[in-house]
Amino acid sequence: MKVSLERIVKILNENNKFCILTHQYPDGDTLGSAFALCRILQKIGKKAKVVNNDSIPPKFNFLKSCVKQENFEPEFIVSVDVADEKLLGPNLKKYCGKVDLLIDHHKINENFAKYSYVDAGAAATAQIIYEIMNIIKTGWDSYIANCIYTGIATDTGCFKYKNTTAKTHKIAAAVLELGAEKDKINTLMFEQKTKEQFIAEKYIMDSIEFYFENKLAIIYVTLEMLEKSGADDSLIDGIAGIPKQIEGVVIGVTFRQKEEDVFKVSVRTSEEIDASLLCKHFGGGGHTNAAGFTIKGSLEEAKEEFISYAKTFIKS
Amino acid sequence: MKVSLERIVKILNENNKFCILTHQYPDGDTLGSAFALCRILQKIGKKAKVVNNDSIPPKFNFLKSCVKQENFEPEFIVSVDVADEKLLGPNLKKYCGKVDLLIDHHKINENFAKYSYVDAGAAATAQIIYEIMNIIKTGWDSYIANCIYTGIATDTGCFKYKNTTAKTHKIAAAVLELGAEKDKINTLMFEQKTKEQFIAEKYIMDSIEFYFENKLAIIYVTLEMLEKSGADDSLIDGIAGIPKQIEGVVIGVTFRQKEEDVFKVSVRTSEEIDASLLCKHFGGGGHTNAAGFTIKGSLEEAKEEFISYAKTFIKS
Repeated sequence: MKVSLERIVKILNENNKFCILTHQYPDGDTLGSAFALCRILQKIGKKAKVVNNDSIPPKFNFLKSCVKQENFEPEFIVSVDVADEKLLGPNLKKYCGKVDLLIDHHKINENFAKYSYVDAGAAATAQIIYEIMNIIKTGWDSYIANCIYTGIATDTGCFKYKNTTAKTHKIAAAVLELGAEKDKINTLMFEQKTKEQFIAEKYIMDSIEFYFENKLAIIYVTLEMLEKSGADDSLIDGIAGIPKQIEGVVIGVTFRQKEEDVFKVSVRTSEEIDASLLCKHFGGGGHTNAAGFTIKGSLEEAKEEFISYAKTFIKS
Repeated sequence: MKVSLERIVKILNENNKFCILTHQYPDGDTLGSAFALCRILQKIGKKAKVVNNDSIPPKFNFLKSCVKQENFEPEFIVSVDVADEKLLGPNLKKYCGKVDLLIDHHKINENFAKYSYVDAGAAATAQIIYEIMNIIKTGWDSYIANCIYTGIATDTGCFKYKNTTAKTHKIAAAVLELGAEKDKINTLMFEQKTKEQFIAEKYIMDSIEFYFENKLAIIYVTLEMLEKSGADDSLIDGIAGIPKQIEGVVIGVTFRQKEEDVFKVSVRTSEEIDASLLCKHFGGGGHTNAAGFTIKGSLEEAKEEFISYAKTFIKS
């Protein structure tokens, strides 16, 4: 059932013992949203905890510090920024069919929960959490401001992506005034790279391949490349946007090897091509111009399969 | 004489035939500020023109289209975003000592004009132009919104740098509501690169050198590297931030060859090191953590001279 923001606040007030779920391979928005919501709930006297499928990438550790770790049997399950139950990941499978409330900003959200609030116009789920807090009107502090800022900044490429709106900037201004430590966060999210990461990125740039008169560009990163550079996988998060940046490229794709024969694929497209539709074919999803999926097989097989399907999306 | 924003509006109203000067190697802020101001003046019935030392890099061409080209003998000279008369460049030397009003946001501004307004807390000079417009309260349109957005976005690295404040985000929200075409601008400024540019960046990444236990990192781009890649100089504008991104680097430096024995040097520093002071030694200037200068000599000589002076800024 679709519910309003006011109704969400009512539902949160009426329940207790919350478990907040994030999507697999957690990013700044799912984590920022989850920890902000968890802290609000704890501040209004509820029991609440955040549960992830994967461990949290080290650069997001500071978000965790804003909540009390509590152990209890949850009574009410909330998912944030999770477009599809499958995206909870294998370790959270047990929550499938049991989500009470989903809060999300992905267009293709499957409305798998009892109550759902999806605002595809919101640049980030954290933007919706901010609006919820604005109704609750209590509990604001710099920890929550940090969570909201992290969610918005990471999902908008620091206000660079198309999803950024005037509202996004207004909320950014508001959380800065509430004490969000943007410099610390921006450095962690966007500026800082290790020497190893720098070297890994050089390798990745060297991997670029062009197809269909430069309209499709692919980069990849294998476990071997990572090992050679000394960088670990979570250190190269920002690379998905690289191939699409090149003039004339309408589909920019990144293959990241996760295991021997498993690749996580990120797809960025220009306006006229629906990335979420393209990725749906491979069991994934996302936004209109930024989506992804996981594919099994060797790098060559995975690329070949993708290229032959992507071809149908490219006008010659 | 220091003047208030209100006084500036009065001065603009009282005068006519404005010539607006930008700094050499013009960037988005000096150009966005100049063309916004020029359009406002033209809209309130004044004669106004923008005059540059250098030609405008192609990606900023859209800014020009917002003003009428007019030929007249100027009576009132305004400089925007020019920290020092010397930075007007050789072709605008004739205006030295003749600037009536300077509007700027650089800390070390020399107050070389008759009237001056310097707000070092403003993320961009375009932010000050917005405030001037807010007093004039007329003439707003999407052209001017584009100019202001371009100035702010380019000088803040799209809201990523430390100079970004809550006010910056509020002004961004306001100009988006006034019709600024942020997607077009962000793509032009930050996203789009040609294949040639991509290749040039690969070469640049390969040029990196580390000194003083990785605290000083230097990259360079020579005319030969540019030629080999097929990219031209204005295409590699975003590179100044690259070396400082690496963890542990406190001074990140970029040498860009301009002529046979002339290099433009950009310096980015961590909080505790004053880049503008460092660059002043070489006749340049800028902000506390982002400054620059021009140096003569071979690449090796220029680097050596810089490294030996920069050493005194690095705590061991």
